[in-house]
Amino acid sequence: MGKELRGRPSRDSPDLLVVLRADTGQPLREQLRDAIKDAIRSGRLPAGGRLPSSRALAADLGVSRGVVVDAYAELAAEGFVTSQAGSGTHVTATFQLPRLEPVAHLTPAPAPAGVVDFDLRADRPDLSLFPRRKWVAATRDAMRDLADADLGYGDPLGSGQLRSQLGSYLSRVRGAVAAPESVLVVAGVTQGLELLARDLVAHGQETLAVEDPGSSRLQRVLARTGLRLVPVPVDRDGLDVAVLAATGARAVLCTPAHQFPTGAMLSALRRTALLRWAAERDGLVIENDHDAVLRWDRMPMGCLQGLDPHRVALLGSVSRSLAPGLRLGWIVPPAALLSSLVVAKRDGDGGSPVIEQHTLARLIEMGAFDRHLRRTRKIYRTRRDALLTALGQQFPGWVVIAATAGLHVWLQPGGEVDAAALVAAAAARGVAVEATAATSVHPPRLSGLVVGYATLDAEHIIEAVSRLADAVREVEVST
Amino acid sequence: MGKELRGRPSRDSPDLLVVLRADTGQPLREQLRDAIKDAIRSGRLPAGGRLPSSRALAADLGVSRGVVVDAYAELAAEGFVTSQAGSGTHVTATFQLPRLEPVAHLTPAPAPAGVVDFDLRADRPDLSLFPRRKWVAATRDAMRDLADADLGYGDPLGSGQLRSQLGSYLSRVRGAVAAPESVLVVAGVTQGLELLARDLVAHGQETLAVEDPGSSRLQRVLARTGLRLVPVPVDRDGLDVAVLAATGARAVLCTPAHQFPTGAMLSALRRTALLRWAAERDGLVIENDHDAVLRWDRMPMGCLQGLDPHRVALLGSVSRSLAPGLRLGWIVPPAALLSSLVVAKRDGDGGSPVIEQHTLARLIEMGAFDRHLRRTRKIYRTRRDALLTALGQQFPGWVVIAATAGLHVWLQPGGEVDAAALVAAAAARGVAVEATAATSVHPPRLSGLVVGYATLDAEHIIEAVSRLADAVREVEVST
Repeated sequence: MGKELRGRPSRDSPDLLVVLRADTGQPLREQLRDAIKDAIRSGRLPAGGRLPSSRALAADLGVSRGVVVDAYAELAAEGFVTSQAGSGTHVTATFQLPRLEPVAHLTPAPAPAGVVDFDLRADRPDLSLFPRRKWVAATRDAMRDLADADLGYGDPLGSGQLRSQLGSYLSRVRGAVAAPESVLVVAGVTQGLELLARDLVAHGQETLAVEDPGSSRLQRVLARTGLRLVPVPVDRDGLDVAVLAATGARAVLCTPAHQFPTGAMLSALRRTALLRWAAERDGLVIENDHDAVLRWDRMPMGCLQGLDPHRVALLGSVSRSLAPGLRLGWIVPPAALLSSLVVAKRDGDGGSPVIEQHTLARLIEMGAFDRHLRRTRKIYRTRRDALLTALGQQFPGWVVIAATAGLHVWLQPGGEVDAAALVAAAAARGVAVEATAATSVHPPRLSGLVVGYATLDAEHIIEAVSRLADAVREVEVST
Repeated sequence: MGKELRGRPSRDSPDLLVVLRADTGQPLREQLRDAIKDAIRSGRLPAGGRLPSSRALAADLGVSRGVVVDAYAELAAEGFVTSQAGSGTHVTATFQLPRLEPVAHLTPAPAPAGVVDFDLRADRPDLSLFPRRKWVAATRDAMRDLADADLGYGDPLGSGQLRSQLGSYLSRVRGAVAAPESVLVVAGVTQGLELLARDLVAHGQETLAVEDPGSSRLQRVLARTGLRLVPVPVDRDGLDVAVLAATGARAVLCTPAHQFPTGAMLSALRRTALLRWAAERDGLVIENDHDAVLRWDRMPMGCLQGLDPHRVALLGSVSRSLAPGLRLGWIVPPAALLSSLVVAKRDGDGGSPVIEQHTLARLIEMGAFDRHLRRTRKIYRTRRDALLTALGQQFPGWVVIAATAGLHVWLQPGGEVDAAALVAAAAARGVAVEATAATSVHPPRLSGLVVGYATLDAEHIIEAVSRLADAVREVEVST
């Protein structure tokens, strides 16, 4: 993973964990500048908040003070921060993000009626990047290495090789507590969530709190299990834990690393509050970490599960990093839940397919998975930059929330927009896009557009944003 | 599949559908002789039953009368039939199979405490025969042929290529009514059954009739869905439909082609009665056709689903024909159930893995699946012959039921044997074996031993049978 210069959390901003890398060729000054930009954009460094002094941060990071001074100067020049002699450096107030409407539902893009020229839906990676040759090579290796008995009814927990690779990967990259024997291999986040939900039902629970807005696809999966879903609002600090506590629910599904779709990262205060809630209620936090390996910030925040593995079930998959069609993911559940989940997995589908599990294990082991992630991150970053530039030009007055992870940005309107009308107007222009809407007024008012950029190259992104802006103008004119 | 000489059903024995093949190199006389032997062993030609006249059968089959006369003569010489001038040819009375005890439960082999030298459990094929090189080649082809979009969230029904291959395969080999759009790809019989069971529960059904004895593994899967399982006895004609009708259940799980573990094939009369029951009750027959492609008779009986696709859900997998670790199977459900099953599959695991589905489709398409079946059938037949010979020598007084499909025989004791004691005595000799037992007496009395022969070569089979006979002697002496 290269040599890293890792800063201790600063007193002033306790979750400012900056990782600078000595081996990338990118100057430390630029790395620090970009990391702070990301933190401001994502809301992790709040508007008006004070940055550490250049002296303190330099000491924390083990770099020369000049690096920090230069980075702060560039940030000031770009308007991200303001420096005043005597009072230090603060995040510029205009970067403050508006609080969300208390209830904002995700409106999925309608099934495309006409031709979709540009697919801005956020649920898919660029599948043309899938490492086909490496996958075949890893399959060949797996077929060479597997014992005959491995091809039988396997361990319903998953293949030992894959659990071992996943365990060390999740520990290293996500700070998870994930011994191989605590990892359950499942068919993606969908199945992981279904197993956890049915386990809750089997243990007498009737409700599950979910983020609002949140993934409508997963909420549909959950609704089938018989659980009653209790929406809990999300703001720029992530899930509102005080509201959660008032619901009486004893289990919650959330996306702490990167709320879908708002991009909010659960704040340090909220993380603490959420874990305290779980401890007091004997509750369960289901942490959907689905796209956390696709990160754009340089301040990786570990997963919640690493802080309290007895209260948090970590869920993830390779659907974003490789392909949804593989149907491979994992649960790292609290130890007390593991055995009943394994039985449910065994009796539900007999365990995940063996050859595919070994193939993924081999892909990770041979380093091809890491190389694939590095390669795709570079490509996605280019597209993300193109999107942010285009949005800056075409969407004046809108707030662009470029999340620190995942493959979409969230666009908040400056004024009032009819959500359904906008989605329809975009569809009429060949652009498929999803929206979140506040349903307290009628017609439901747009609270945000979910703009995925993974599958389009820079040129197409510019055209798609242009058509989307046309759609906005049409809707604004007609209201 | 070669050129076939297909006989019309004879008047005398309406389900005597003999298929003779002109392209195998095996003389027609031998083919006919073996086919009739299989029918007698399986109970499809009942003891005392009259065979068609040689003239009528020759006309039906379109072969010379001499072929039939010679086949009958060989059968008579081996004691299978008796011919008397004037009264025709009859199945010898001593081949009559005893009726089963009304209730006989399957006792799984205990988890091996010591070393298992010989695994006679019936649930696994010989995994050393898995076509590894062909699988890698088919994976390479699949990776070459798949479109990028195919790697995304796929059709929850399954990949079109695989459904197309399975549909034509099931139609051709099993006589199923299986258009590609009616085939749902699932993770083996386990998941197929779980989906069907949950669908029954969702539609308000509370009970499911199951064969007794039957697969304890599948009954465990079913019990988790909340259905109450109603055991229905099995005799040499298969499931007792009259008892089924008296239970009030509106759905039944059964194995018409090859009852597990007794090997009984559902008789023509019972097949008719079962379909009539389903029509009158608006009921559902779940036909577990799990190992029907591994057949030893030459009178293939089509699946029940082909007779009434609106009342029968056909279930199958490649667990026996290729490997359980692939977790690939299918449901061909009544059209009315398809959409809710697809939704459950989609929300349960997001569909089966795409690359593996395409790999299997390619394996079938390139003919490698058929070649693999032909190769393994030959190997299994040698082992089966070795087992039958060894049992004939070592188990005098026991009835050997060599089923017409699958990879095990069922051994019925001549006298009274303590089932658990025998299984334990076998385990102490390094032999893992499953037993069925009548539980109306205490200790439960052995009603049959389930002896799988797939994984052992002839030499080891002889040794395993010898140890099993030792175990019987110990148990008989000590009781």
